[in-house]
Amino acid sequence: SAASDVYKRQLHDRAVTDRTELDRLLDATVLAHVGMVDDTGSPVVIPTGIARDGDHILIHGSTGSGWLRGVAAGRPVCVTVTDLNGIIVARSSFESSFRYRSAVLFGTFTPLSGSAASHALDVIVDHFLPGRLAEIREPHRREVAATMVLAMPIQDWSLKISGDWPTDPADDVAGSTWAGVIPFGVQYGDPQPAPDLRAGIGVPASVRALTHAS
Amino acid sequence: SAASDVYKRQLHDRAVTDRTELDRLLDATVLAHVGMVDDTGSPVVIPTGIARDGDHILIHGSTGSGWLRGVAAGRPVCVTVTDLNGIIVARSSFESSFRYRSAVLFGTFTPLSGSAASHALDVIVDHFLPGRLAEIREPHRREVAATMVLAMPIQDWSLKISGDWPTDPADDVAGSTWAGVIPFGVQYGDPQPAPDLRAGIGVPASVRALTHAS
Repeated sequence: SAASDVYKRQLHDRAVTDRTELDRLLDATVLAHVGMVDDTGSPVVIPTGIARDGDHILIHGSTGSGWLRGVAAGRPVCVTVTDLNGIIVARSSFESSFRYRSAVLFGTFTPLSGSAASHALDVIVDHFLPGRLAEIREPHRREVAATMVLAMPIQDWSLKISGDWPTDPADDVAGSTWAGVIPFGVQYGDPQPAPDLRAGIGVPASVRALTHAS
Repeated sequence: SAASDVYKRQLHDRAVTDRTELDRLLDATVLAHVGMVDDTGSPVVIPTGIARDGDHILIHGSTGSGWLRGVAAGRPVCVTVTDLNGIIVARSSFESSFRYRSAVLFGTFTPLSGSAASHALDVIVDHFLPGRLAEIREPHRREVAATMVLAMPIQDWSLKISGDWPTDPADDVAGSTWAGVIPFGVQYGDPQPAPDLRAGIGVPASVRALTHAS
C-alpha cells in the first residue's frame, strides 16, 4: 500500500525484512496500537491486546465496542507494535536515542466465528498468560456470543530494529562525557490474590512461571 | 472533536477526567504512538518519544523525517500513550484483562523555533533521562538546525485507567480456580559502557539514579 511505502521509506535505515524477526517481536508482545480513520476522517489510535497465530494477528473485544465493530466491518487499519528496550546514552543530546523493535502492519481484519473463533480465543488466552488455558473452565456460550475475535493476515508490514550503541563524533569521544546503553525490560511483581479469593487456593503454575522467571 | 467523542464513548466505563492523572501518566512515559491519515487516506501509526511541558506535549525528530514534516505542517493527529502495568488473572478467560493507564490526545502540532525550540529540547532530554541535561555539552548549531521539535496543546483528550481486580461471577468464585493480579513494571539493567568509551570515565549521576532506583 502507499501507506506502507511511506513508512518503509522512513525506516529504511534500520529496516529488517526477516519474517522470523517480526514473529519474535509479535510473540514477545501483548500490546498493539491500532490506528484507523473514523467517520469524520480523523485518525484514532486505540491500544489493545494482540496475539499471533501463524500468518495472522488476532485482536478481540466486546461486541459492544464501537471501534472494534468498525474494524470488523473492514475499516483499514495500521497496527503498530513497539518494544522499547534501552536508552542509548550518547555524549550529546543529538546522538542520544532509544533501543527498540517496532513493527507496523497494514491491512484489514476479518471476524472469526465457530471453531476458528474458539481456537483464536485459546491462542490469545495462552499468549497473554502462557499455560493459563489449561487452568480455567471453557467459556460459556453467552461469553463467546459477547466476544468478537478478529484476524488480519501478516502481509504488508515493516519492521525496524535498533540495537545501536552511541555513535558520537570523534571530538565528543575524545572528551570526558560518559556514553553507553541502559537496557530495560519488564519485571513482574509478586502475584496478588484477588480480594474474593477463597482460602486454600494456591498460586497456579502459569502465574508462578511468569513471576519466577523474571 | 467527533473523533474524541467516539473515543470518549468507548471509554466511558473507566474514564478519568482529572488532568492531574493525565499529567502523571505523561510524566511517567517516554513512548507515544502518533496516528495520522496519510495522503492516500490510509491510517499510519508511528512510535516516537514524548515529553510534557506544562500544557503541551512535545515530540521531536530529524528535519529529514517525512511523517514529522507532515505533522509539523498541521496534519491532524491522535497521540496515544499507554502504560500497561498488570495482568488481571480472572477465573475465566472472559473476565481476564489488563491493568493499564491509557491517554488519547487529539489535535495538531506546531513547530517551535529559537529559544522555544531550545527550551523544548532541554525538556525532552531531561525527561528521557532525568539529570542528563547537566552532564552534556550544548547542542551545536548544525544539530539544532537538523532537529524539528513540535508542540501540541493538551486540550482534547481522554484518559482511561484500570486498576481493577477480577470480577468473577459467584459460581466461579465458589470454585477452585485461583484469581488475582500480576503487577509488572520497567526494570533497568546495569549500564553498559559504549565500546568506544575512554578509560577512567565513570558512570554519571543521571545513569546511576535511574539504574539504582529500579
